[in-house]
Amino acid sequence: MSKIAVMGFGVVGSGTVEVIYNSKESIERKIGEPIEVKYILDLHDFPDSPYADKLTKDFNDILKDDEIDIVVEAMGGLNPAYDFCKSCLLAGKSVVTSNKELVAAKGAELLEIASQNNVNFFFEASVGGGVPIIRPLHMCLAANEINEIAGILNGTTNFILTKMIREKMTFDEALALAQELGYAESDPTADVDGHDSCRKICILASLAFGRHVYPENIYTEGITKITAEDVEYAASWGGAVKLIGWAKATHKNGVKESDVVAMVCPAFISSDSQLASVDDVFNGILVRGDATGDVVFYGKGAGKYPTASSMVADVIDVAKANGTSQTLTWVDSNQDFLIDYKEAELAKYVRAECENKDDAKQLIQREFGEVTLLSRKNCPKNEIAFVTPIMAEGKIDEHIKKLKDGGMTILSTIRVLDY
Amino acid sequence: MSKIAVMGFGVVGSGTVEVIYNSKESIERKIGEPIEVKYILDLHDFPDSPYADKLTKDFNDILKDDEIDIVVEAMGGLNPAYDFCKSCLLAGKSVVTSNKELVAAKGAELLEIASQNNVNFFFEASVGGGVPIIRPLHMCLAANEINEIAGILNGTTNFILTKMIREKMTFDEALALAQELGYAESDPTADVDGHDSCRKICILASLAFGRHVYPENIYTEGITKITAEDVEYAASWGGAVKLIGWAKATHKNGVKESDVVAMVCPAFISSDSQLASVDDVFNGILVRGDATGDVVFYGKGAGKYPTASSMVADVIDVAKANGTSQTLTWVDSNQDFLIDYKEAELAKYVRAECENKDDAKQLIQREFGEVTLLSRKNCPKNEIAFVTPIMAEGKIDEHIKKLKDGGMTILSTIRVLDY
Repeated sequence: MSKIAVMGFGVVGSGTVEVIYNSKESIERKIGEPIEVKYILDLHDFPDSPYADKLTKDFNDILKDDEIDIVVEAMGGLNPAYDFCKSCLLAGKSVVTSNKELVAAKGAELLEIASQNNVNFFFEASVGGGVPIIRPLHMCLAANEINEIAGILNGTTNFILTKMIREKMTFDEALALAQELGYAESDPTADVDGHDSCRKICILASLAFGRHVYPENIYTEGITKITAEDVEYAASWGGAVKLIGWAKATHKNGVKESDVVAMVCPAFISSDSQLASVDDVFNGILVRGDATGDVVFYGKGAGKYPTASSMVADVIDVAKANGTSQTLTWVDSNQDFLIDYKEAELAKYVRAECENKDDAKQLIQREFGEVTLLSRKNCPKNEIAFVTPIMAEGKIDEHIKKLKDGGMTILSTIRVLDY
Repeated sequence: MSKIAVMGFGVVGSGTVEVIYNSKESIERKIGEPIEVKYILDLHDFPDSPYADKLTKDFNDILKDDEIDIVVEAMGGLNPAYDFCKSCLLAGKSVVTSNKELVAAKGAELLEIASQNNVNFFFEASVGGGVPIIRPLHMCLAANEINEIAGILNGTTNFILTKMIREKMTFDEALALAQELGYAESDPTADVDGHDSCRKICILASLAFGRHVYPENIYTEGITKITAEDVEYAASWGGAVKLIGWAKATHKNGVKESDVVAMVCPAFISSDSQLASVDDVFNGILVRGDATGDVVFYGKGAGKYPTASSMVADVIDVAKANGTSQTLTWVDSNQDFLIDYKEAELAKYVRAECENKDDAKQLIQREFGEVTLLSRKNCPKNEIAFVTPIMAEGKIDEHIKKLKDGGMTILSTIRVLDY
């Protein structure tokens, strides 16, 4: 008999309980024994819930009950989720979580504790919602060196960008619509400033490269400065603006000890890319392996039942693991394998105001050599837009500074990525 | 120590051996013990191969060697692969295969034998090449009822259709190019007639619905009759022609005992679909679950290293299973849960010749009510094309017969699918 506790009875927690009871028969067939949710931890009362009898406000009920061998954490946030999960692992209980903040900040430590206590710490639901990505990535890794991962990892910002692209909305209009539809929180900072994507790319990069990548070390830029003009230029260039979390091995020190560059930023993505057609609230994650080539995973990145179904898949895997530790492991690390993002080789789209277009073109050519000039309908006389050649970002920025020195006003710059 | 035998030293077999030795260190770290290829079975000599000392022509060397606990089958075809794999499983050796013909024809039997002998029979590489699909599908299944699966499962035909769409080639021109580039065999029947896709959708459907679906019971139509005109009409309709293998639960008898309809056919797919952007030799597989919604897996569906990397991922899983049977199981079945494909509800694109367009339109409206008329550049005066409303295919065909009776010549019909 697998006895489970669910911590947090919000959207994901209640979804997980529902999926467990809706699919109870098929889950039990898969794990070969009965399954039961014994406790639901939440500080609120839910007198009308069919699971009201399982509710407790005291974490110790769970921690001290030896019958509980699997704990599902769906509280979100770092505290008290971190303390609770750590205590459970130390007490020999496996933990399944959808909490990307927790995994991105404390993954290496919790994986280590799980391993020492011969239990599992699984987090399929922390990235990509209902899209299986953590375990497939682990599978890809089995026979591949992963060179790069890039993804549209946040449905809210992708919805906003899709509305800006397809319906010519401004950022503010699209954000307001996202809030109206319940896709964005009243405080949308974590989404639109890229923090949510940052946590997710940290989890994926840690798994792919075997060493913990901490969010505070990843350059993160959100979508609040993207304008309708930028979106239009992206289309004229042959692509779209997407918020991309990406991480790339630079192979400077050989494959095994490779340096890694990682970033979250809005980017021009070619319409040929599989990521370009990931629209609305969907997520898409591209894994570039040396043997498999590009593999892409696509689906709903959030939502009650998609996320709950990933939680339940983890619960089943823990139950099937039968008391052995199958933890997907990476190790803690000082962050010296992360190279400065200014060293990343890429191109940039630049939009600028100038006094005289011909002079500006000459200046641009002097700095960058041949560039791709972009156009848009009703372009003001004094606006110029182009895509630079590929070089280290720091170099590009030096040249852009020269454009400013030469009298041009830079209106926007957006990276151009090759996914 | 895991000792492995590889049967078949062609493209996939030699790729598997290479990947094992190239990633030996990382594989051994994952499985926690040394790994070695002890035998390679092939009837040819490979005197220049670095693995020449491992070659044998006698299957009994493998079968009778108790040190061999994992056998990789990369011979292809039903015989002698079936006998060899069966003998290995009966002798307590786990089998990993990329052989879709074998799994589609004998999967239920070999899974049953593996289970009885407490060994594993894995076949991740049999569908989607390097794209992880078998195990992610199994994961999705854990907490989902799968309602539908649809995929572009054959890279050769997808390459041909892409060339017809993008470069306006005829079928014959595109096939010749595919042969020139080594994507198509000199006898391309298995690809262009849909048999390869049929085997793959049978494997996916068997896994999703828990009962073996045999290829001979699946209506299969290839792409040889697709014309440049059809491709043009698909574009004017807002999509593309793709060869789709699909299987769908009809839920007639409730979810658990659902009837299933499955088919391989060229189809109009809307350009909004994630499958529409799967081009060239790539594969894309859409899984529609009740909790996750649509999840799509995309990548290279064939090729030496992608396929080999899936084989090696399976080898690692077998080695980690440590002598326990983790077989992904479905059961044999009489095929009475498969309903007649004529009962499937869908729409059809119809292209026809008529004497008089106005008369033809009236006749069409009498039969189908409102239809979507399609147009193309330089359309001959006596050609008419349209998309029917959605209804059972059998009904559509009855109405089409009436069009013929009314004097119209049907030039082509292609199904319109909602993926």
